[in-house]
Amino acid sequence: MKFMVGVDAGGTKTEAVAYTLAGKEIGHGVSSFGNLLLHHEEASRHIAEAVQQSMSAIKEGSCCGIWIGMAGYTPQTVEALQLYMRKNFPGIACQIEDDATIAHAAMFKGKDGILTIAGTGSICLGCCHNQYLRGGGWGHLLGDEGSAYWIAIQALRHMVSEEDQRIPRSALSQAVFHALQLKTVHDIKSFVYSATKDKIAALAVIVQQQGDQGEHTALGILKEAGQKLAQLTISVLNRCENQQMRIAGYGGIFEHCEIVRASFIHHMEERINGLDYLFTPISATKGCYYLFSKHWRDIKGK
Amino acid sequence: MKFMVGVDAGGTKTEAVAYTLAGKEIGHGVSSFGNLLLHHEEASRHIAEAVQQSMSAIKEGSCCGIWIGMAGYTPQTVEALQLYMRKNFPGIACQIEDDATIAHAAMFKGKDGILTIAGTGSICLGCCHNQYLRGGGWGHLLGDEGSAYWIAIQALRHMVSEEDQRIPRSALSQAVFHALQLKTVHDIKSFVYSATKDKIAALAVIVQQQGDQGEHTALGILKEAGQKLAQLTISVLNRCENQQMRIAGYGGIFEHCEIVRASFIHHMEERINGLDYLFTPISATKGCYYLFSKHWRDIKGK
Repeated sequence: MKFMVGVDAGGTKTEAVAYTLAGKEIGHGVSSFGNLLLHHEEASRHIAEAVQQSMSAIKEGSCCGIWIGMAGYTPQTVEALQLYMRKNFPGIACQIEDDATIAHAAMFKGKDGILTIAGTGSICLGCCHNQYLRGGGWGHLLGDEGSAYWIAIQALRHMVSEEDQRIPRSALSQAVFHALQLKTVHDIKSFVYSATKDKIAALAVIVQQQGDQGEHTALGILKEAGQKLAQLTISVLNRCENQQMRIAGYGGIFEHCEIVRASFIHHMEERINGLDYLFTPISATKGCYYLFSKHWRDIKGK
Repeated sequence: MKFMVGVDAGGTKTEAVAYTLAGKEIGHGVSSFGNLLLHHEEASRHIAEAVQQSMSAIKEGSCCGIWIGMAGYTPQTVEALQLYMRKNFPGIACQIEDDATIAHAAMFKGKDGILTIAGTGSICLGCCHNQYLRGGGWGHLLGDEGSAYWIAIQALRHMVSEEDQRIPRSALSQAVFHALQLKTVHDIKSFVYSATKDKIAALAVIVQQQGDQGEHTALGILKEAGQKLAQLTISVLNRCENQQMRIAGYGGIFEHCEIVRASFIHHMEERINGLDYLFTPISATKGCYYLFSKHWRDIKGK
């Protein structure tokens, strides 16, 4: 039995799934972070571990290829991972893409569409007539509007602004104070400048909970997040020949936050009516399978 | 002859000035950074070096006290520096304040007023009936609006937004590209995430030069900086009993950027008319002298 392995190598975990050439899942592996920018060797080892696990239950048959989507995609990390995979999986072709590309392929089954991702950061990737178009993805200092990190920072900025203007603490501020066990507003500073980006981004959950309860400030932040994500998507849509592209939202913010989704659609509809929207989460490893299949057909077709 | 030493211990350099009790400068010393958060031991040594230099030309007489204003003021750094100074200058009383407090005293000769500082970061410090009021100073992730770092980041965000929307590069963008010797807009990302805060903030000079030449985007950023600094100042003014406080602007942005100053005054005047504005730069070490004198008079008066 022939099969391929799709890998989603992320900032916190790595998932590998072995698929038959018909797309049936036959093996699964999970390990820790696979972003080589965090730690070259450890990340490479995690990726290999997940791949090994996904293959372990398959008794016979040959692996036709490994397709990886990685966070922290740079020419250097791609080269390092290629070398590592060649050594650890000799004779198996390994293709490496960035994580947005495999998520796009997963959501649209390898076809055209515009995918906007709102996780810790935010980025938009469109594919129109086999041509990729990008927007955003500039990181937390230059952009990432609408992302979990951005939502969390808006809440924290709101808290320091309450302090500067000596206005009473909003319910949102109180919830964040409680969650972080802060005593004074000055502890916010200590928290922000010592915490990792992920830890800050995790506060978005509190904003979402408060928003779901109708808290005014949280609602404002979440609606603005949806608007910013729509603006990013529109900046990519504007560059597509086909204006009737399908639109997908991916990542924790789209997955868990109804208010952001609704605001996103609302602001998209202001620009263009009647588009199709997909928000159903799907394993990005399936995108690897779709990309592999296309590639495999091309090879066999020759 | 009796004298005191005032010290301005900053993020890039430390200045120490010996003053007679009548306020006449009789010795001067300069060394490298004095922010203990950057490096405890080195910063302490730089401060002691500058103090020593400022005293070296004074043949006789006793030092009545050392007054230090330091960047990176925290309970821990104050304690560490106190210990170091006690060991290196035994028998001389040493008082430590944060850098904003001595700049405030320098600008207002130890009297009431509201000082807004726009250097790498931004902060506002008011003193009303001997009571200090603060606003801003939250650092680059939470605020620092109107600061050199903020101005630089606005310019860089504008550049990536041009890329996302595929609009032609503005003259400001071209100037930044040239100054940083960047090839593509993606090099901005590499620059921002590897550069120190100071190096990013240094780009504010290019925004200022472009603004002076009437470049549209630069003008917009600088005017907004002035507005943000006015908002910060007003948030402090609103908490003062006396609404006719004198207002001072301090730091590189106020010192060098006429457009920011004009916008600042314009937005202040919208809130309250006829205030006095001071922008003349003065050595913050003189503020140490004013604070020391007040303290000295209090001691002698007892």
